Amino acid sequence: MNNTTKAPEPLWNKTRLATTAAPLIGGALALMSGSANAGDLKQDDFVGISFWIISMSLVAATVFFFLERDRVSPKWKTSLTVSGLVTLVAAVHYFYMRDVWVETGSTPTVFRYIDWLITVPLLMIEFYLILSAITKVPVGVFWRLMVGTLIMLLGGYLGEAGYMPVWPAFIIGMAGWAYIVYEIYLGEAGKINAASAPPAVQSAFKAMRLIVVFGWSIYPIGYFFGYLTGAGPEQSADALNIIYNLADFLNKIAFGLIIWAVAVSQTESEKMAKA
Amino acid sequence: MNNTTKAPEPLWNKTRLATTAAPLIGGALALMSGSANAGDLKQDDFVGISFWIISMSLVAATVFFFLERDRVSPKWKTSLTVSGLVTLVAAVHYFYMRDVWVETGSTPTVFRYIDWLITVPLLMIEFYLILSAITKVPVGVFWRLMVGTLIMLLGGYLGEAGYMPVWPAFIIGMAGWAYIVYEIYLGEAGKINAASAPPAVQSAFKAMRLIVVFGWSIYPIGYFFGYLTGAGPEQSADALNIIYNLADFLNKIAFGLIIWAVAVSQTESEKMAKA
Amino acid sequence: MNNTTKAPEPLWNKTRLATTAAPLIGGALALMSGSANAGDLKQDDFVGISFWIISMSLVAATVFFFLERDRVSPKWKTSLTVSGLVTLVAAVHYFYMRDVWVETGSTPTVFRYIDWLITVPLLMIEFYLILSAITKVPVGVFWRLMVGTLIMLLGGYLGEAGYMPVWPAFIIGMAGWAYIVYEIYLGEAGKINAASAPPAVQSAFKAMRLIVVFGWSIYPIGYFFGYLTGAGPEQSADALNIIYNLADFLNKIAFGLIIWAVAVSQTESEKMAKA
Amino acid sequence: MNNTTKAPEPLWNKTRLATTAAPLIGGALALMSGSANAGDLKQDDFVGISFWIISMSLVAATVFFFLERDRVSPKWKTSLTVSGLVTLVAAVHYFYMRDVWVETGSTPTVFRYIDWLITVPLLMIEFYLILSAITKVPVGVFWRLMVGTLIMLLGGYLGEAGYMPVWPAFIIGMAGWAYIVYEIYLGEAGKINAASAPPAVQSAFKAMRLIVVFGWSIYPIGYFFGYLTGAGPEQSADALNIIYNLADFLNKIAFGLIIWAVAVSQTESEKMAKA
Amino acid sequence: MNNTTKAPEPLWNKTRLATTAAPLIGGALALMSGSANAGDLKQDDFVGISFWIISMSLVAATVFFFLERDRVSPKWKTSLTVSGLVTLVAAVHYFYMRDVWVETGSTPTVFRYIDWLITVPLLMIEFYLILSAITKVPVGVFWRLMVGTLIMLLGGYLGEAGYMPVWPAFIIGMAGWAYIVYEIYLGEAGKINAASAPPAVQSAFKAMRLIVVFGWSIYPIGYFFGYLTGAGPEQSADALNIIYNLADFLNKIAFGLIIWAVAVSQTESEKMAKA
Repeated sequence: MNNTTKAPEPLWNKTRLATTAAPLIGGALALMSGSANAGDLKQDDFVGISFWIISMSLVAATVFFFLERDRVSPKWKTSLTVSGLVTLVAAVHYFYMRDVWVETGSTPTVFRYIDWLITVPLLMIEFYLILSAITKVPVGVFWRLMVGTLIMLLGGYLGEAGYMPVWPAFIIGMAGWAYIVYEIYLGEAGKINAASAPPAVQSAFKAMRLIVVFGWSIYPIGYFFGYLTGAGPEQSADALNIIYNLADFLNKIAFGLIIWAVAVSQTESEKMAKA
Repeated sequence: MNNTTKAPEPLWNKTRLATTAAPLIGGALALMSGSANAGDLKQDDFVGISFWIISMSLVAATVFFFLERDRVSPKWKTSLTVSGLVTLVAAVHYFYMRDVWVETGSTPTVFRYIDWLITVPLLMIEFYLILSAITKVPVGVFWRLMVGTLIMLLGGYLGEAGYMPVWPAFIIGMAGWAYIVYEIYLGEAGKINAASAPPAVQSAFKAMRLIVVFGWSIYPIGYFFGYLTGAGPEQSADALNIIYNLADFLNKIAFGLIIWAVAVSQTESEKMAKA
Repeated sequence: MNNTTKAPEPLWNKTRLATTAAPLIGGALALMSGSANAGDLKQDDFVGISFWIISMSLVAATVFFFLERDRVSPKWKTSLTVSGLVTLVAAVHYFYMRDVWVETGSTPTVFRYIDWLITVPLLMIEFYLILSAITKVPVGVFWRLMVGTLIMLLGGYLGEAGYMPVWPAFIIGMAGWAYIVYEIYLGEAGKINAASAPPAVQSAFKAMRLIVVFGWSIYPIGYFFGYLTGAGPEQSADALNIIYNLADFLNKIAFGLIIWAVAVSQTESEKMAKA
Repeated sequence: MNNTTKAPEPLWNKTRLATTAAPLIGGALALMSGSANAGDLKQDDFVGISFWIISMSLVAATVFFFLERDRVSPKWKTSLTVSGLVTLVAAVHYFYMRDVWVETGSTPTVFRYIDWLITVPLLMIEFYLILSAITKVPVGVFWRLMVGTLIMLLGGYLGEAGYMPVWPAFIIGMAGWAYIVYEIYLGEAGKINAASAPPAVQSAFKAMRLIVVFGWSIYPIGYFFGYLTGAGPEQSADALNIIYNLADFLNKIAFGLIIWAVAVSQTESEKMAKA
Repeated sequence: MNNTTKAPEPLWNKTRLATTAAPLIGGALALMSGSANAGDLKQDDFVGISFWIISMSLVAATVFFFLERDRVSPKWKTSLTVSGLVTLVAAVHYFYMRDVWVETGSTPTVFRYIDWLITVPLLMIEFYLILSAITKVPVGVFWRLMVGTLIMLLGGYLGEAGYMPVWPAFIIGMAGWAYIVYEIYLGEAGKINAASAPPAVQSAFKAMRLIVVFGWSIYPIGYFFGYLTGAGPEQSADALNIIYNLADFLNKIAFGLIIWAVAVSQTESEKMAKA
């Protein structure tokens, strides 16, 4: 009799997938109704096209993460939720940024940083959540990651918005990033993980760390080509925005996909362990 | 057999999380479609940036409260609902206020008070709900908290909108606030709680009281710097709005997070008591 | 074993609450994106402020009725649905009316009557539903309530829109209202209820009747101050709209809250009868 | 034990009702945000008022059909879905048509026919679905109903849009309609139903046929008064649109209500047969 | 007893259908609120009418796929999800394209290719998903299909946007398409399927291949009539857009309907195999 009452559950988890999708269509229908300035996108505005594609891809990724959330075991759901929230918040801001770019051709710096002020801490919460699913993590880890994030973003904004010379601001931002990398590799966060995580979680954590090192390195590259190569910000706005868009595409969508992939494989192996 | 039929339930509560998230994306997609005046935000308009960040944070908090609502035991759900409604109503009004500020640079006083007229009573209902989950609470407690709220808001509005000299209006508003503080510390509401609540609920109630005392004290500070320092309202609009935004951020989001934290810990301890 | 399979159900009903809330946020987010004319509301336009507050309160009430719907036993759900539909349809029209008032300062008579043409019959359907939950009610009762409703609204519109002198139109409208009151007190509807309803339903029915008598009497009072006091419609537009707004606030939200209160208490007593 | 596990199910079907309602509010909230031209409706524009009322009624009907869908047995759900899709698609187009009429005062012929090109085939699919729920229906029946529909709509559009003289176009359209009536009364569709359907389905089928005969006859009446009475289309635009609006109100909402009524009664009798 | 606990499940899967529909209405309501330029569609703008009809049909198809998703067994759900995502993303872009065409009369080339850059890879993922449901498929298959897709789209865009002479660009695009056809017929993808798929999956795979060959051949036909017949792009914009619209209608909606039909029949036969 155990079987008869248990059996519907896995099916159930999957049938849930269906109903989550419907509201997403609803919202997208609403999205369709706001195409006021659609005609402004030029065929040769490849920066604008990249804004457009990443906007829609972030929407699709958000839909994907929230739908796939039902396929993974409960302890992985919150991680997928946060992955979806990251792409969701980013999508909202990319729609604003897209409009600014397509209509004015100027770099939407202020919206990038408002976005990053919300989404980068959420990515740090992802690290904390994955560690917390394993063991009791000191709250200090969380706050140190937050401090690194804020320094990194503060430095960037001071430089890009013109409140500081671009080189010193660059160094401040790099210091914040370096501190995060230190924390997740050599600090308390890195040690906790190495000591207590099962292999699949360790591999996810390692992949996420690699993204923070290599994926996030695209941002200083963008900053470099945008502000540190001698050309003024107007001349290098194209390079700056294409590189930033690519970085957000990778670091937000790929970051989430890594968590999703590990979550799915962990869920499958748990099921096999039970059967 | 008890186990086999009971077992799916906790899982179920968590799988429910997934489906609640989807409509939120839908709405956010709709939100993206209304970016008419996005380009108006200036890089050095830090008041505008604070309006922008609190708007999106209230949206994120609303999503968080409604998603997390599934994780807590039934008797705590209504409290999380009201927490979410507070941030929801505030988010709606902050989008209006953000537009007014970004487009005109003037203080959106009338929208602040319309917001507070709906959300502050909801926060008072939170107190009443938490007490009612424990014992039968006289309806008089509810009405007294409402009266204090209305006096507090009436005084503030008369002063800020220019219907009364700012000092007398300040005193009226402070009197309303003092009455609420009296009621929840020394009045019937405070006594009921002390007498009958389990420790976790008492701690939540105490934390909520502290927010009403210390968090809410930010509002008169904002009023003071906005109207009572000699500078006219135009000169001090920046200070006024930054302080009010910070106060709403703390009193609405942190207030809800306290309830959420107690609700989650209570739910966990109930589960352990059953097992 | 009965207990183990039955036990999850009440919990379940309550966990359902969580998921219903999410789409509401979604819609509200969409709502935020349409704040085009927010800045037009003046600090001293108290009629506009009353339009604004009732708009948001109707939204909140709709959310409340649809969320709370899960807490009541099945036979009461449809009544809460209709309560929510009344506040929903009213909310939609109040947003239109609010815009008309704030932007033009004129009375949105045509939208009021389009709203009433849909919501007042829905309130009459509430009566019919409550009676039908008890016993088989002749369809004639339904149609007589509808006829009274249409006469009442027709008279009002002919007078307010200027198709008839205001006094004769007033008398026609009052006649329709009187017919409804007769039907629910002395007619077939009143007798059916008295004969066969359980006490809680009788009390709900009586409270709803009182609203139709005393709450609805606010409308002719508004009409009187708006059209019959000698001042032209322009001079008395403020009084007319404030009174009508107050009437809709009470008759739509309080009407629903009465049904909700009885539905919750009935559901609780059914549960106790089973246990 | 059968009873304990079965018992929750009917309750469950009804508790589902609650959650379906919430997203509808969400969408309606979004609807409220688009009231740009609300003030354009004149108090004496009764055609515009009829556009307005049918728009909101189609929304309400859609909400009704999708909510009530949970109350009927599975095999009837698809029919209610299609009923709701018909009113949904019609509602979308009526909002467009309402705007065209209120803003320009001209007949929105092209939107009527785009609407009918999608909704009339859906009504034909309703016939096919009801037959298919009973027995295996030849696909030829489906295609013949589609062909009749297209001829009927083609004739109408050629006449109304001015591509053909109005009388020959009228005859083409009437021929398409006559072919549908022939098929559902005397053709294969009519015979299948008579031979194999249970009484309640037969009564639904008969009621739907009556709507196709008498309800649909309102359209040629509208065409007649709009184009064949000697007055030009401008002079008779009021009659044309009022009659068409009335026809859509009856044929879309009443058509669905018939299906709903039979579905509910069939579901009840199935439950009684089981018990 | 197996029966009593199992029995509710199929019913359950169907009752789920009801709740998925509701948010769709919500979104559609939001859609209604954005009809700003509805009046711009001319009665004789048949290209515009075709944009309009395909827009609404893609919406309806999306609703259909996400609703029907609940009727199929879990392993087929993801395929229906992707089918729905294809029509969803296409619907969003068609609303933009429709606006561009109706307002400017110019070909919305850039939006077509942004759409295709997202939806054509999703169609390739469909092939990969169907193969993966059967056996372990080498990731190389996925990437080769992606490469073919990108070459095909790159060639098309270079030609249509004027970056290359139209004939060489045509040949590049055709080469990409030929490579996809080779892969799914003679390459690794084709062989995997032939070797291991059950009959119904093989038939779905074969039908999908036929669509890629014959349905997709409509695109080069459109390109041919649009750019290679000697007339300039302005003269042949009507032919180009009508043909492209027809192709998208077939290849996106019919592609999904094939998957749906096989999914439903497979689900039914699985149920019969169990019973």
